[in-house]
Amino acid sequence: MAIQIAPSILSADFANLERDIAAVSAADLLHVDVMDAHFVPNLTLGLPIVERIAQVSSLPVDTHLMIEDPDHWAPRYAEAGAASVTFHYEAAKNPVAIARDLRALGVRASVALKPGTDASAIIDDLKEFDMVLVMTVEPGFGGQAFMPEMLPKIEAIRAAVDRGVADGSLAIAPWIQVDGGIAPDTAHSVTSAGANVLVAGSAVYGADDRAAAIAALREVANGPETINGVPASGGPGAHHH
Amino acid sequence: MAIQIAPSILSADFANLERDIAAVSAADLLHVDVMDAHFVPNLTLGLPIVERIAQVSSLPVDTHLMIEDPDHWAPRYAEAGAASVTFHYEAAKNPVAIARDLRALGVRASVALKPGTDASAIIDDLKEFDMVLVMTVEPGFGGQAFMPEMLPKIEAIRAAVDRGVADGSLAIAPWIQVDGGIAPDTAHSVTSAGANVLVAGSAVYGADDRAAAIAALREVANGPETINGVPASGGPGAHHH
Repeated sequence: MAIQIAPSILSADFANLERDIAAVSAADLLHVDVMDAHFVPNLTLGLPIVERIAQVSSLPVDTHLMIEDPDHWAPRYAEAGAASVTFHYEAAKNPVAIARDLRALGVRASVALKPGTDASAIIDDLKEFDMVLVMTVEPGFGGQAFMPEMLPKIEAIRAAVDRGVADGSLAIAPWIQVDGGIAPDTAHSVTSAGANVLVAGSAVYGADDRAAAIAALREVANGPETINGVPASGGPGAHHH
Repeated sequence: MAIQIAPSILSADFANLERDIAAVSAADLLHVDVMDAHFVPNLTLGLPIVERIAQVSSLPVDTHLMIEDPDHWAPRYAEAGAASVTFHYEAAKNPVAIARDLRALGVRASVALKPGTDASAIIDDLKEFDMVLVMTVEPGFGGQAFMPEMLPKIEAIRAAVDRGVADGSLAIAPWIQVDGGIAPDTAHSVTSAGANVLVAGSAVYGADDRAAAIAALREVANGPETINGVPASGGPGAHHH
């Protein structure tokens, strides 16, 4: 699968979301960070804004719920128009039940892991999920530095997905998303490790030309360096292989 | 004091806030509802969006924090650029300490009362506040119907303010704000009861001509009907006097 780019509106201009959403139409997904000041120490935006974003976005809306009680709230975001709903494993009472609720509503069900949560938390339930989000920073704020020590977690999930597809236990291969500090200098270390959906906030919205920033990320992520599995820049990934 | 009108962006277009904020420049304050999905069962927006709103608004930003732990968070909204920060009495560990923190940061300190909270909760501390917000609906959502049974609470606070100013115990008269179901048909019942800052969401943003909607509210609120204390339309207030 070609690598998908998901710009995060956490780095967009909140006073002009329609304009800034249109500016990233060359991407694959629109990433929306929902924070409730309880699961993480920041409050960003919630249901009424997600609903409006879904109305104006030409891209599928990929919501990342950094909130408590996703068992209750996650389906509401599906109903608000999100195409994909990611909830945190650490916040969920019953992750599989949430995922089944989401799929029943016709959206992609996705589970996120904080840096401190091991891949083993979800490996045995991979068939329940359409995507696994490996956080490469502590969730809560944009603009943080990539944590290269998350690469082995991505590799472990990629190996389990490939194994499941090969032995027939997985009918579909869940996507592997990464979020936090993703930029041209870190993108191919994560895709080399097996990620195929890249969230990028500052790397896209911090650029004057957002379409060019998306194209640059896409090129690094899909480029020959990645196909050969050799980081060209000696980036963080190189120190951990 | 002339009545002040505070349009609530909870009813604005979240994808085009800069445009919709500019559209209400004839008002006096810009009201921003912050909800955390814990103090109220809705999640709206938080610090990073308030910060951006304060940058683009020509009106003073009047934040209404419907969140838990305002003892921690209220000063952060002052630092984000709000001109007035309203926290809920029911959520606060130490309302007076929060108010003093806010005033020390150079912003107006305001306390809000849910419909079930009696005026007596704050009457003895009026000198600590620059505004008291009397909720005229249960907080959490826009578009709800006005609760006329809140009029006696407004009257009680107005009487205490006037008494304090007369006997010198209040150096300044705190404003009395109302929020919930305020529209031309309810505006003069609340101003007759003593409110002088009117939050209006749907009544402003639901109108094609927002400036005209603000002018209409202002006229009803300040008009001769109010001065005579006689509701002209036989609105909800009339049934409770």
